Amino acid sequence: MEKISGTQISNTIIEELKIEADNLKAKNILPTLAVILVGNDPASAIYVNNKKKACQKVGIISLEKTLPEQISENKLLNIIDELNNDQSVHGILCQLPLPPHINEKKIIERIDPKKDVDGINPINIGRLCYGSPLYYPCTPFGIVQLLKRSNIEISGKHVVIVGRGPTIGRPLSIILSSKGFDSTVTVCHSKSTSIQTITKTADILVAAIGKAKFITKDFIKEGVVIVDVGINRIPDENSPSKSKVVGDVDFEDVFPKVRAITPVPGGVGPMTVAMLMHNTILAAKQ
Amino acid sequence: MEKISGTQISNTIIEELKIEADNLKAKNILPTLAVILVGNDPASAIYVNNKKKACQKVGIISLEKTLPEQISENKLLNIIDELNNDQSVHGILCQLPLPPHINEKKIIERIDPKKDVDGINPINIGRLCYGSPLYYPCTPFGIVQLLKRSNIEISGKHVVIVGRGPTIGRPLSIILSSKGFDSTVTVCHSKSTSIQTITKTADILVAAIGKAKFITKDFIKEGVVIVDVGINRIPDENSPSKSKVVGDVDFEDVFPKVRAITPVPGGVGPMTVAMLMHNTILAAKQ
Repeated sequence: MEKISGTQISNTIIEELKIEADNLKAKNILPTLAVILVGNDPASAIYVNNKKKACQKVGIISLEKTLPEQISENKLLNIIDELNNDQSVHGILCQLPLPPHINEKKIIERIDPKKDVDGINPINIGRLCYGSPLYYPCTPFGIVQLLKRSNIEISGKHVVIVGRGPTIGRPLSIILSSKGFDSTVTVCHSKSTSIQTITKTADILVAAIGKAKFITKDFIKEGVVIVDVGINRIPDENSPSKSKVVGDVDFEDVFPKVRAITPVPGGVGPMTVAMLMHNTILAAKQ
Repeated sequence: MEKISGTQISNTIIEELKIEADNLKAKNILPTLAVILVGNDPASAIYVNNKKKACQKVGIISLEKTLPEQISENKLLNIIDELNNDQSVHGILCQLPLPPHINEKKIIERIDPKKDVDGINPINIGRLCYGSPLYYPCTPFGIVQLLKRSNIEISGKHVVIVGRGPTIGRPLSIILSSKGFDSTVTVCHSKSTSIQTITKTADILVAAIGKAKFITKDFIKEGVVIVDVGINRIPDENSPSKSKVVGDVDFEDVFPKVRAITPVPGGVGPMTVAMLMHNTILAAKQ
């Protein structure tokens, strides 16, 4: 019954990256990340702010482009083209979601794969399928690092991922089942029948469903490792006027039965940011 | 205990495509597939010949580029560029494997995604992960068609795929677990522990391992559907000087226990060719 601290592990990674950033600066390379934020979504603003703070800690220049909600798709594409062509920019991140009048896929595909430090351009996901990604997508890569740095063996283990989304479930299933990681991976989703039968066979269970406290002790076997990727805002029972963030796992319910579990908040979240920093340093090296 | 005939189903598809090709011709569009064959590999020559024959049946113009084993990577890239720019060519297929002095990945990535009727350019595989592929890769798509046209339900079923290669196991796992197909998918491979425990839970078992007769009755539960993707050449016990082709499944051993099974040859093989024709017609329509 161990609580895996993503906050602590991500801090270690940030410290390691700081040394690498200093080495780059000694060679007159100033690692630079452009962060595009469109509109006024409060959650997005928090995420972007967390990324900015992490840049400061590592020593990465963060170039913020805060754009109005009404910006046209063409203008946004032009801004990306400028950043693609700007030699001083190593990584480009466009905070999602984008307003509905903008085609998200078009934007993602426009970011130069070499600067796609978020690792979500289809060409980078495709290369991931071939086992040779330029960058691993941040959240799945953060999960792998969480497990590795907590000395949790993944090779040969049965990993059950609940969720098949393109940013987490899908790429994570590809990474974990590929050579060098070597897990046996099952992907479940909303159309899966008898989910509990399958999740109970998991050595490692990843919850990326988007439903608050969906996974209870009835879904797991004794000694499982759980990674909770959910971020769900629910009313705070202690102060009804406020809300709080919980994961896809009912933490208190499962805790006595698990070998280890990541909390929400303080689990996967900070790891995503740390991996973005990792990829930006990698981009600056190339 | 049904034997699913890929030969028969592919013939039906070819007939359907012939009508579509005729419709295109009535609009003065002549569907054209360029097929590149490098060197003298006898198996590759057979595959290319099968594709040529299928083109003739459908009414697709097949433009063959037979190139010497020694051709340089640059020359091959130039040929692909020419075909990319040739408005009369709708699809480009480069028969794999290529000689070792040529970087296969570089070649695959060079084919214009719009003409990548084999569906193997990383950008098309990446789009597959996002649920919006231009073309489904031929062999995985052929398997899906085999199942659908044999009235085998895949939604909600547990599919176990043994094999994680980039042309079959990997993309098939992505397709089957995505929206609209909705299977629960497990990918096993050479590093998986207790494979038999997992394969025995399969409603549908796909064998894409490359080991002759690897799957026996001990790997399956009663009433499973098996898709055998293996193509293994072994000595023919009836005439020792000759060889014969067998799949990854011990057909005779499993047959009494299965609901349905695809044979080798005559199962997945002809479906791959039919899907290449399907994608070429699709390319010509666009």
